[in-house]
Amino acid sequence: MQIDLNSDLGESYGSWKMGNDAQILPIVSSANIACGFHAGDPLSILNTLKQAAELNVSVGAHVSYPDLVGFGRRNMDLSYDELFADVLYQISALQGLAQVAGTQVGYVKPHGALYNTIATNLNQAKAVIDAIKQYDANLVLVALAGSPLIEFAREQGLRVVSEAFADRAYHSNGALVSRRQANPVIHDAELVAQRVLDMVLKGGVESIEGEFTAIQADSICVHGDTLGAVQMAQVIRQALTAHQIEVRPFVN
Amino acid sequence: MQIDLNSDLGESYGSWKMGNDAQILPIVSSANIACGFHAGDPLSILNTLKQAAELNVSVGAHVSYPDLVGFGRRNMDLSYDELFADVLYQISALQGLAQVAGTQVGYVKPHGALYNTIATNLNQAKAVIDAIKQYDANLVLVALAGSPLIEFAREQGLRVVSEAFADRAYHSNGALVSRRQANPVIHDAELVAQRVLDMVLKGGVESIEGEFTAIQADSICVHGDTLGAVQMAQVIRQALTAHQIEVRPFVN
Amino acid sequence: MQIDLNSDLGESYGSWKMGNDAQILPIVSSANIACGFHAGDPLSILNTLKQAAELNVSVGAHVSYPDLVGFGRRNMDLSYDELFADVLYQISALQGLAQVAGTQVGYVKPHGALYNTIATNLNQAKAVIDAIKQYDANLVLVALAGSPLIEFAREQGLRVVSEAFADRAYHSNGALVSRRQANPVIHDAELVAQRVLDMVLKGGVESIEGEFTAIQADSICVHGDTLGAVQMAQVIRQALTAHQIEVRPFVN
Amino acid sequence: MQIDLNSDLGESYGSWKMGNDAQILPIVSSANIACGFHAGDPLSILNTLKQAAELNVSVGAHVSYPDLVGFGRRNMDLSYDELFADVLYQISALQGLAQVAGTQVGYVKPHGALYNTIATNLNQAKAVIDAIKQYDANLVLVALAGSPLIEFAREQGLRVVSEAFADRAYHSNGALVSRRQANPVIHDAELVAQRVLDMVLKGGVESIEGEFTAIQADSICVHGDTLGAVQMAQVIRQALTAHQIEVRPFVN
Repeated sequence: MQIDLNSDLGESYGSWKMGNDAQILPIVSSANIACGFHAGDPLSILNTLKQAAELNVSVGAHVSYPDLVGFGRRNMDLSYDELFADVLYQISALQGLAQVAGTQVGYVKPHGALYNTIATNLNQAKAVIDAIKQYDANLVLVALAGSPLIEFAREQGLRVVSEAFADRAYHSNGALVSRRQANPVIHDAELVAQRVLDMVLKGGVESIEGEFTAIQADSICVHGDTLGAVQMAQVIRQALTAHQIEVRPFVN
Repeated sequence: MQIDLNSDLGESYGSWKMGNDAQILPIVSSANIACGFHAGDPLSILNTLKQAAELNVSVGAHVSYPDLVGFGRRNMDLSYDELFADVLYQISALQGLAQVAGTQVGYVKPHGALYNTIATNLNQAKAVIDAIKQYDANLVLVALAGSPLIEFAREQGLRVVSEAFADRAYHSNGALVSRRQANPVIHDAELVAQRVLDMVLKGGVESIEGEFTAIQADSICVHGDTLGAVQMAQVIRQALTAHQIEVRPFVN
Repeated sequence: MQIDLNSDLGESYGSWKMGNDAQILPIVSSANIACGFHAGDPLSILNTLKQAAELNVSVGAHVSYPDLVGFGRRNMDLSYDELFADVLYQISALQGLAQVAGTQVGYVKPHGALYNTIATNLNQAKAVIDAIKQYDANLVLVALAGSPLIEFAREQGLRVVSEAFADRAYHSNGALVSRRQANPVIHDAELVAQRVLDMVLKGGVESIEGEFTAIQADSICVHGDTLGAVQMAQVIRQALTAHQIEVRPFVN
Repeated sequence: MQIDLNSDLGESYGSWKMGNDAQILPIVSSANIACGFHAGDPLSILNTLKQAAELNVSVGAHVSYPDLVGFGRRNMDLSYDELFADVLYQISALQGLAQVAGTQVGYVKPHGALYNTIATNLNQAKAVIDAIKQYDANLVLVALAGSPLIEFAREQGLRVVSEAFADRAYHSNGALVSRRQANPVIHDAELVAQRVLDMVLKGGVESIEGEFTAIQADSICVHGDTLGAVQMAQVIRQALTAHQIEVRPFVN
């Protein structure tokens, strides 16, 4: 048994520090690294890449809409051409930094509003997919478990990894409980760890409606933005190890 | 006999158009392309790269300080680490776009204030040189003819191309006449073309003080920002052709 | 009889020049001036404000989403709080510059995607309205003729001016013909001038379906981005003068 | 006896939080608030202004070079015109936000590299001074104790407040010990509080060379970026109170 744990890293910007990259990197197998459009100045990105390289953590491009002040969390109606070029620019910039840091970009995970939008908006999805394919058709796309994007990107010839969220509640239909609804996030580390085990061992979790719900999880997202989040990630990692589930990247 | 003609391109930004890339590309052999820090959004950069690829014009990264509103023309005292990472980010971003456009980055020409500063400031020069070397030691650096940077970069192991300016006046010591002094720029196209011929055929030009001055010119910079500039570049190109001087890039 | 002519100005950004502010200012009575979020660096804004002040052209804040590279033309789903603060920041910045230039901000015209969005999205509209009211309840809001925003803003206590477009085709229901449909823009200057006269003298124009359509036009938008646009504005202005229709601002 | 305590606030930017504004505001009498050029998005600025207004803390514009990624800490050679307009834009934006928050801008304190540069570069100083004067000649300028700027600005007719730093070491000539030298910062809160008392009661402190050095301090800068810094500010405040020295703003 094996699973990938991923986390969003490299999200500092100049004097503003965010996240605990040095603490979370030993726990995860894949690092989604900001590329400068929602977060990440070149120097802080490079430093995080060096740490990831040293720990043999797989590296992905965490591409975003161009919205620093909104941290890429606000929808933007970019044209296909704009989004194609923006994604290509970000993957490319990260790849050059990664190469100097002694590693390379193995996958692409869209960030924030872009992640949510292309889960269903296939025009924007096509721009992201085409940028990836034209840059390097071997790059893997990380997509929301259960979303139309997964099948769509596979039809376009991309390798796709299905992602679940360790600490999020799910509906019985497999959809995430929206952050605008009650109880979207689970805060108890032991419970979260048990749900991660369920995802790996049983292929699903109990929904907020109380039913078992299948969740296809090739990779599970954990957080590192607070010390509490890092501790939760550590508890998850230990639970996986205790059950002989190997934490390993989906790309090497 | 041969010479390279280079020009600054890809300097539009979103809705703001600058330069006449389609008109100047058939005239020059090397295109210095903005990377997003002083000019150039990803989509307009990509479009210029595609035109350069189609015309087999060599492509260089026109790297800059991060100063859009100042167009990279204002000195900034970046640290070594900041400048190293900024230059690396820009070359990398451009290389990925170039690859998709069907070409590749062959050289690096610092832009504006960075170009002038590293001509003599060897701490900042070292950051640029190290970024180039760690990214791809085969990339060529374009540097101001007569500047200390040329020897310094060669000592560090970089291949360096010495650049002269077609329309600028020179002092007898080989220095450019400053834009703050009288008559720094020559506006007569025929005279400019003759001076370019002198640079190639005689290895120098008449200085503003009236003496012959040696100028080592591996590449000559022409402008494309106005239609008049494009016409001057055309006159230069025709003069070179009329004297059996081949216009060809220093990298292929 | 009287009418206001307005135009979008101050849209240069650093080295990138846009528009023909000096040519269009003598033609119009109101200048919608960029505030730095979609266009306009402080120095170019200040220069345009000084010209407007000298010609006694009324000045409005052309507030936008924060999207320089997209020129404020892409929808962004800002929260109420973000949009409130962004609009307030822009009006305030412009007012200080205007004061030093010898004039003052008399109205607010949202720009681009924000203009179109708040014509019907009343949550975002509320943020704009509240920012205006809390800053200075005497400022006038310029809104798309026929849009729900007009009534909504009046209910909130704002004075609202209804705006029509000189060179745009209208449907019989009063809606603009979308730029994605055929023939959204009228290019013949004489025809455009006649339609402006119709708006003022008859209260409407012939729709693209061939019917007379009422358009409430307190202010008519003309363009200055090209020399052709400036000439069209001049033709409109002359037609108004020839019919004894005074071109005067709705605020002084 | 009385003294002003000031601190740099409003330095968050979007999702990136910086400083402990809510903790430091009850301690200081003057809040230097970022204006968006080195830090501070409109919404976070507005929130800090509201807290300052509620606590009757005096508000100043912490104006900066336009350098978000460098946090305004890197020198930039802006022209007089650029700097004039940039400073004017920032004061204006802050004033509008302040007005809505129920307060107003009473002074201007240049930030970071701009603060240090204009202490001696009188061309850039003139741009800052002229912007302040043309916007509102009653605004006070906060300048480095002992710097040529103080006399220069007074000659230009500005009211100037001389600022000392609670936790910094001074040379016998009154200059700050550079951060590139040994021991530029004093970390012991009790010692720092004693030095603040010395500044107020004796008009100076012991220099790093061991001599008493006169420091003209109308306002003393304390920090709030860490919880340790907040605690040090609290110790300073308590020491002042214990010696019947009133902490009050230099403007109301």
